[in-house]
Amino acid sequence: MALSDLNPVERNEEGIAAVLGILKQQFGERFQTGEAIRSQHAHTTTYIPTQAPDGVVFVETTPEVQEIVRACAAHRVPVIPFGIGSSLEGHTNAPGGGVSVDTSRMNRILAVNPQDLDCTVEPGVTREDLNRHLRDTGLFFPIDPGANASLGGMAATRANAVRYGTMRENVLSLTAVMADGEAVTTGKRAKKSSAGYDLTRLLVGSEGTLGIITSLTLRLQGIPQAISGGVCPFPSLEAACNTVIATIQMGIPVARIELVNALQMRAMKAYSKLDYPESPCLFVEFHGSDAGVAEQAETFGMIAEEQGGGSFLWTSVAEERTKLWKARHDAYWSSLTLRPGAKGLSTDVCVPISRLAECVTETEADIAEMGLIAPIVGHAGDGNFHVLVLMDTDSPEEIALAEKFVARLNMRAIAMEGTCTGEHGVGQGKIGFLRHELGHGVDVMRTIKQALDPFNIMNPGKILPGARQ
Amino acid sequence: MALSDLNPVERNEEGIAAVLGILKQQFGERFQTGEAIRSQHAHTTTYIPTQAPDGVVFVETTPEVQEIVRACAAHRVPVIPFGIGSSLEGHTNAPGGGVSVDTSRMNRILAVNPQDLDCTVEPGVTREDLNRHLRDTGLFFPIDPGANASLGGMAATRANAVRYGTMRENVLSLTAVMADGEAVTTGKRAKKSSAGYDLTRLLVGSEGTLGIITSLTLRLQGIPQAISGGVCPFPSLEAACNTVIATIQMGIPVARIELVNALQMRAMKAYSKLDYPESPCLFVEFHGSDAGVAEQAETFGMIAEEQGGGSFLWTSVAEERTKLWKARHDAYWSSLTLRPGAKGLSTDVCVPISRLAECVTETEADIAEMGLIAPIVGHAGDGNFHVLVLMDTDSPEEIALAEKFVARLNMRAIAMEGTCTGEHGVGQGKIGFLRHELGHGVDVMRTIKQALDPFNIMNPGKILPGARQ
Repeated sequence: MALSDLNPVERNEEGIAAVLGILKQQFGERFQTGEAIRSQHAHTTTYIPTQAPDGVVFVETTPEVQEIVRACAAHRVPVIPFGIGSSLEGHTNAPGGGVSVDTSRMNRILAVNPQDLDCTVEPGVTREDLNRHLRDTGLFFPIDPGANASLGGMAATRANAVRYGTMRENVLSLTAVMADGEAVTTGKRAKKSSAGYDLTRLLVGSEGTLGIITSLTLRLQGIPQAISGGVCPFPSLEAACNTVIATIQMGIPVARIELVNALQMRAMKAYSKLDYPESPCLFVEFHGSDAGVAEQAETFGMIAEEQGGGSFLWTSVAEERTKLWKARHDAYWSSLTLRPGAKGLSTDVCVPISRLAECVTETEADIAEMGLIAPIVGHAGDGNFHVLVLMDTDSPEEIALAEKFVARLNMRAIAMEGTCTGEHGVGQGKIGFLRHELGHGVDVMRTIKQALDPFNIMNPGKILPGARQ
Repeated sequence: MALSDLNPVERNEEGIAAVLGILKQQFGERFQTGEAIRSQHAHTTTYIPTQAPDGVVFVETTPEVQEIVRACAAHRVPVIPFGIGSSLEGHTNAPGGGVSVDTSRMNRILAVNPQDLDCTVEPGVTREDLNRHLRDTGLFFPIDPGANASLGGMAATRANAVRYGTMRENVLSLTAVMADGEAVTTGKRAKKSSAGYDLTRLLVGSEGTLGIITSLTLRLQGIPQAISGGVCPFPSLEAACNTVIATIQMGIPVARIELVNALQMRAMKAYSKLDYPESPCLFVEFHGSDAGVAEQAETFGMIAEEQGGGSFLWTSVAEERTKLWKARHDAYWSSLTLRPGAKGLSTDVCVPISRLAECVTETEADIAEMGLIAPIVGHAGDGNFHVLVLMDTDSPEEIALAEKFVARLNMRAIAMEGTCTGEHGVGQGKIGFLRHELGHGVDVMRTIKQALDPFNIMNPGKILPGARQ
């Protein structure tokens, strides 16, 4: 069964025709219906089939988004928000057609409040844009999903960083256009509030199914006095995972701690031309004062040594650190060299950290048994890891095998008290696992969805299983 | 207009009679209808009038809570959860009568997972109970609202701590009995998840209006190697607030930083027999390694000195620190000595930290102008502060004056991009300010409430303004 069958959305041809006419008139050249642009605005990153929208609007303001949603609401036509298209679970697909709302031109930084360590941005601003803009303030935005994603998209799927939390903790408030076309601002700029239901957190991670985010107020962090990072090899995945557990338990405020398995190290070593060992490694980074960072690194080194960790490639020089993290960011591209011509399917799960070694080890065994080529990287401090299955996306047999692997991985994570997605979101790809994980909670979600979007126009066919589930 | 008029709830006499009969039969001695017990289970902490429930059930399990909610749903009768009764905004009142669900006997610690730094508890467990239980594990639960509240109640109103975040960040998942009697578990034990809408955060802070929390999975922290704390006097509130701003901006991971104004210092000094100055003070506490704590304290000392801070009463001895924080915890009791015979009305707001000095200074001036006796304490690191208005709660004039003061305080905070409640919740007391703060967001909240509780039986008359607003 194809993923889109889990939650089919019927096309409303008459409504779509009416809306296309309205948008053409209102947005002129900023409304596009060419096939190439429509396809680019659907899901393009994995084997999930591309389901293109009927048109794309390049919006520039919140009132424009309101206009579009009102037209779509009046004619019962789907609206699908689009950031930069880096999502991995089919979020940008239009299974019932409709209008893609491209927010890439909503890329203004509206306010920076250095005293309050916050800023307000439009959703099309990317993480790198924001950090470039902040450079002279001594502040930075710490969440790095491993890609230069749009901040709106990151909020919609709830991306992460171990020391600084996820988007959940780092979005102070937001403005979203709801299914009735009203723009709702979920809070002011106070650091905390108990003023009613937490609409900020309800919209963060809602994947465009409840509202379209049109501005975000984000927490910022002071750039630390010292940053130091390194790569440490381990004799086994288990030893690496045990080091992570001990590091977190000791309360070392590690800024990043990333697990990379042996296969992934081999690929990175070749691709990034670095002198790395071909064994499981941890990539770590510490932030703090000079003394604090030195102390953290020393304690970490002792823990790693107890677990049989090898000699630590260590640096506090910015250029070397950049090289190291560039290698980690290029994990995806390096992996592709393991099977030239293949595409990658990136899937993620998250388990309690005590189960991480077990879950990763069983998954490696499963990969071997199923004959897959699939390197593993993990945001290990959170118990979150990604598997990149290298596959021929034109082969039905390989798709079936990959889906079987993903299903086993997800059920394994859920059985270990974990979740079917740590940070990629549900989209279309994880719909089938939600009830296994949350039971009746899925019905509560559906009740909320139906109440806030009675005509099911907001990114339909995502998150919630249809009647067949 | 009385607060309960903002959201009146009609009594359903027939339904109430039916439910009382059912509960008497099912719960025997654990169901109480005596007037004293009923009154104790209504709001008792401020001048907000006591509105007693018709009966109180001392529940012991989740299925019992489900039984009660099902009976109440069938007969359209209100259900009001009750923890320890320390809430300040009328949350436990029963404006339309109904059944109080006392969770104090649900006080088991169900699981402690030291490797994952989490535990699962029933809602009647108090913060102190939990920390006593954890003592030998080297872990602790850091959220301290300044009272030994029940953890269920703390989650329902979203209490806080600057370094470790609020209950929002520290509840990993929870189980709640919803209005249809179904028990929903909002997540597993993974540290992060993007699996659909964030039901955990929706229920945290929902004040019993969407569901009754029957278990909580909480994040724990390792007990720091070193703790050091102290009290520092300042020449003005502004100097104290500027010290807080600089401390947060420098990224010093202060564990607590509490503002106490001169009047409150005078009361505490007399009550706790401590040799404190009678000027605005900051109470601070640092957690970390020996070296880390020393470094934090030194940097903080330099910042305070630049702002004219006086000599620092400093200690890393546990007993002295306990004495210091006991004085801070006893702020309420000490304040009462400022006007013998009076009762205290504690109200809270929260503003962006850059506006804290301005907001507190204007509030002090307002207190003087209105002729009130009202000391101020604040969780300054978050921009959150409390005012305790000492009043004769039998005097309509004093109640009117206090309400006027609270209204001005709330509108001031909202005008400064803040919130009408940082951690006490909305209850009945803050209903009138919610729309000023959140506009159309209130309608979104109401849509969610109506969808999840169509017969308005879950703690009705709280959070959401009625038709008159």
